[in-house]
Amino acid sequence: MKIDLNSDMGEGFGRWTMADDDALMGLISSANIACGYHAGDYAIMDHTVRLAKEKGVGIGAHPGLPDLIGFGRRTMVVSDTDMEAMLACQIGALQGVAARHGHRVTHVSYHAAFGTMANENDDRALRLVRVIAALDKDLTVFCMPGQPTERAAEKVGLKTHTLFLADRAYTAAGTLVPRGQPGAVIHDLAGVRARVRQFLEDGLVTTIDGVRMPVKARSILVHSDTPGSLEIAKAIRGEMDACGAVLTPAHRLND
Amino acid sequence: MKIDLNSDMGEGFGRWTMADDDALMGLISSANIACGYHAGDYAIMDHTVRLAKEKGVGIGAHPGLPDLIGFGRRTMVVSDTDMEAMLACQIGALQGVAARHGHRVTHVSYHAAFGTMANENDDRALRLVRVIAALDKDLTVFCMPGQPTERAAEKVGLKTHTLFLADRAYTAAGTLVPRGQPGAVIHDLAGVRARVRQFLEDGLVTTIDGVRMPVKARSILVHSDTPGSLEIAKAIRGEMDACGAVLTPAHRLND
Amino acid sequence: MKIDLNSDMGEGFGRWTMADDDALMGLISSANIACGYHAGDYAIMDHTVRLAKEKGVGIGAHPGLPDLIGFGRRTMVVSDTDMEAMLACQIGALQGVAARHGHRVTHVSYHAAFGTMANENDDRALRLVRVIAALDKDLTVFCMPGQPTERAAEKVGLKTHTLFLADRAYTAAGTLVPRGQPGAVIHDLAGVRARVRQFLEDGLVTTIDGVRMPVKARSILVHSDTPGSLEIAKAIRGEMDACGAVLTPAHRLND
Amino acid sequence: MKIDLNSDMGEGFGRWTMADDDALMGLISSANIACGYHAGDYAIMDHTVRLAKEKGVGIGAHPGLPDLIGFGRRTMVVSDTDMEAMLACQIGALQGVAARHGHRVTHVSYHAAFGTMANENDDRALRLVRVIAALDKDLTVFCMPGQPTERAAEKVGLKTHTLFLADRAYTAAGTLVPRGQPGAVIHDLAGVRARVRQFLEDGLVTTIDGVRMPVKARSILVHSDTPGSLEIAKAIRGEMDACGAVLTPAHRLND
Repeated sequence: MKIDLNSDMGEGFGRWTMADDDALMGLISSANIACGYHAGDYAIMDHTVRLAKEKGVGIGAHPGLPDLIGFGRRTMVVSDTDMEAMLACQIGALQGVAARHGHRVTHVSYHAAFGTMANENDDRALRLVRVIAALDKDLTVFCMPGQPTERAAEKVGLKTHTLFLADRAYTAAGTLVPRGQPGAVIHDLAGVRARVRQFLEDGLVTTIDGVRMPVKARSILVHSDTPGSLEIAKAIRGEMDACGAVLTPAHRLND
Repeated sequence: MKIDLNSDMGEGFGRWTMADDDALMGLISSANIACGYHAGDYAIMDHTVRLAKEKGVGIGAHPGLPDLIGFGRRTMVVSDTDMEAMLACQIGALQGVAARHGHRVTHVSYHAAFGTMANENDDRALRLVRVIAALDKDLTVFCMPGQPTERAAEKVGLKTHTLFLADRAYTAAGTLVPRGQPGAVIHDLAGVRARVRQFLEDGLVTTIDGVRMPVKARSILVHSDTPGSLEIAKAIRGEMDACGAVLTPAHRLND
Repeated sequence: MKIDLNSDMGEGFGRWTMADDDALMGLISSANIACGYHAGDYAIMDHTVRLAKEKGVGIGAHPGLPDLIGFGRRTMVVSDTDMEAMLACQIGALQGVAARHGHRVTHVSYHAAFGTMANENDDRALRLVRVIAALDKDLTVFCMPGQPTERAAEKVGLKTHTLFLADRAYTAAGTLVPRGQPGAVIHDLAGVRARVRQFLEDGLVTTIDGVRMPVKARSILVHSDTPGSLEIAKAIRGEMDACGAVLTPAHRLND
Repeated sequence: MKIDLNSDMGEGFGRWTMADDDALMGLISSANIACGYHAGDYAIMDHTVRLAKEKGVGIGAHPGLPDLIGFGRRTMVVSDTDMEAMLACQIGALQGVAARHGHRVTHVSYHAAFGTMANENDDRALRLVRVIAALDKDLTVFCMPGQPTERAAEKVGLKTHTLFLADRAYTAAGTLVPRGQPGAVIHDLAGVRARVRQFLEDGLVTTIDGVRMPVKARSILVHSDTPGSLEIAKAIRGEMDACGAVLTPAHRLND
């Protein structure tokens, strides 16, 4: 059973850091690397790609809105063309850094408000995955189930992977319970471990309403920017190992 | 006689512009496109590449230092690794935009202080051209004659082209007379035209000391960010046409 | 009859310029100076304030959203507290520059989306004018008639001035005809001159529907960032002089 | 015995933080607040000033070079006029924020490369303190002993305070042993406490060569951006309390 464990990486800026990337990189199989718009800069991108290469971790672009102060979490008024150009610049920049280190960008995972805006409608979603396909037809696109991006990526022939979030509660509709609502975030490590085991052994998640619901994901996302993220990552990885899951970068899941 | 006419393009930012790019693009064969560090942003890069594609103009990356306020003209204290990462990010970003428009980045031309710093010593020059070669071995590197970058590029097997500046005076050593010295800039269009003709017909330039000196360049650079740049570009292009030069993008000069 | 003629100034960035500020400064009585968020930087602010001081032109802060690429024209998702802090930083920065040149900031004129967002509701408008009053109770606030900002400024005891735009059409409701609608912008200089004369002599403007409507403004705004802005400024100023209007900085209108 | 304990504060950016400001603010008497150039933004400046006001902590501007990626630690090529304008903008912005919270900026402490460059020669040092004096003649300037800034500030009638660094080794010349040299940084808390006691009781510091040297400072700087800075601050503050020092904001030391 091949399973990917991925995390957002390289989300510092200059001397500022967001997570203990060096430690996390030893636990995961895929890194979603910030490309300088919502976070990251040339030096951090370079360091993160080199580290991923050393650890055998697959790398993906994690494109965001050009908004360092807002960390890419604030929606903005931008045209489709602007979003297409932002996407091309960010994936391209990471591909450039990857090339210099003999590594290769193999997936794309939208960040925060960029992802929200990319999924506003099917037309925009399609425009953006066309940009991805133009840069590299072998790129895998990370999605949430049922999003316009998933449909659009399949339409243009790009591979997709949906993510499972072991520390977040789900609704019966398959969506995440919004942060701020009671029970939205699973804080205790035992609870996270139990969810990983249920997901790996039964392909199920128990929703916030107590319903056991199938999950088709094969890629687990662990947040890097929350307090205790390293401990959560260790718990998830530990349970994956205990369940016999074979840690596998996202783009190799279907090999 | 194939000759390239190139200019720095896309050097605006947001709503600010530096030159009449749309008009210049109709006159040149190669565009050196700013990549967002000293100038340019995602929207401008996108517009400039699309325009170049429409006009059949070859495109190159014009990487600079990350210094919008200083327009990349101020040297900075940065490590070799930082410069390598800056270079990879900028070329990669433009490659990404080019890919989405079905165009291709075919040359690299350093901007201002980035160029000065890239040529500080042979080791740094070599590190940087290795980055270029890692991104695409077919990239042509623009140089000034005798610079470390020229030697380094040849060492790693990259093609190079030296530039001829029709509106700048030369010393007998083959270098440009620094701006600010009397006679450094040729302002009258007739003078510029005469120099283009001398260059094209005889392969010579008359230095500021009156010496007729051979010039091996096949690529003419016209400044886009000086007053009257469009008139100068028209004068140069007009003289090229009058001399029977065949306007040819830099990367096609050796076809 | 004392009348103020004002314009947005210092809206370049680094080496980029938006208008011929040096020429415009010779025609106006009040300058609304960008403070580094949507445009302007330390060097431009410094140059603009010094120039205003030399020419006897009154200065005001022209605060915008922190969005250089969008020139402050895109609304953003920001809290009231963020807007208050942005406003304090921008006015304060200009006050600092003014102090060093022996000049004084005497008015505030919101820029683009900052102004739109400041007027979203009475509560926000009030919070922002309280910031202005805390920095200097003698500051005059520029408003459009009937806006929440006008009511709020009067509530906290700040002076206000409404602006008359001689090159824009008005509706019968006293608002501007939105750009993009036919007739929204008056392009011919004779038309602009006629409107200035009507405004100065009769205190009226003829709306787009042909109604002669009273205008209570005593301050004329001339755009600096449109093509031909210098010619429009000269036309307005010429007509003001011909009508015997006494050019007066905004904060002196009530002396 | 009135003694000031100060620290650099507000040196985050957007969602990134540099230190545990909220905890440090409870230990110190003066805060040197970043003004948005090397670190800090409107929201962080606003939060930091409000916090200082609540805790009764004096505030100073901590102006730096406009270089977020380099955290203001890289020297740049800028003119005297540019430095003057940067300084006026930064102090002014903080004054604006202070005004809105009913607080007042009472000192200035240069950050990193801005300080190095400000002290390059007496002329530049003088130009800059003249800017400070123009903004507020009551501002106290923090200096290292014997620097051009100290002489210049005294010349224009500004108060100065020299800083004592309890966790850094001194040479016999009174300068700091550069970071990177063995023994430059005192890491053990007992050592730091002993130095604070020696400074407070005897007015002495033992140099790296074992010489007991007089120190005239009355203001202790504790670094906020080093690992363990909070523990060091607690140790220094604890020793100050044990020695009977009366914690006093810098601008009140001479009351």
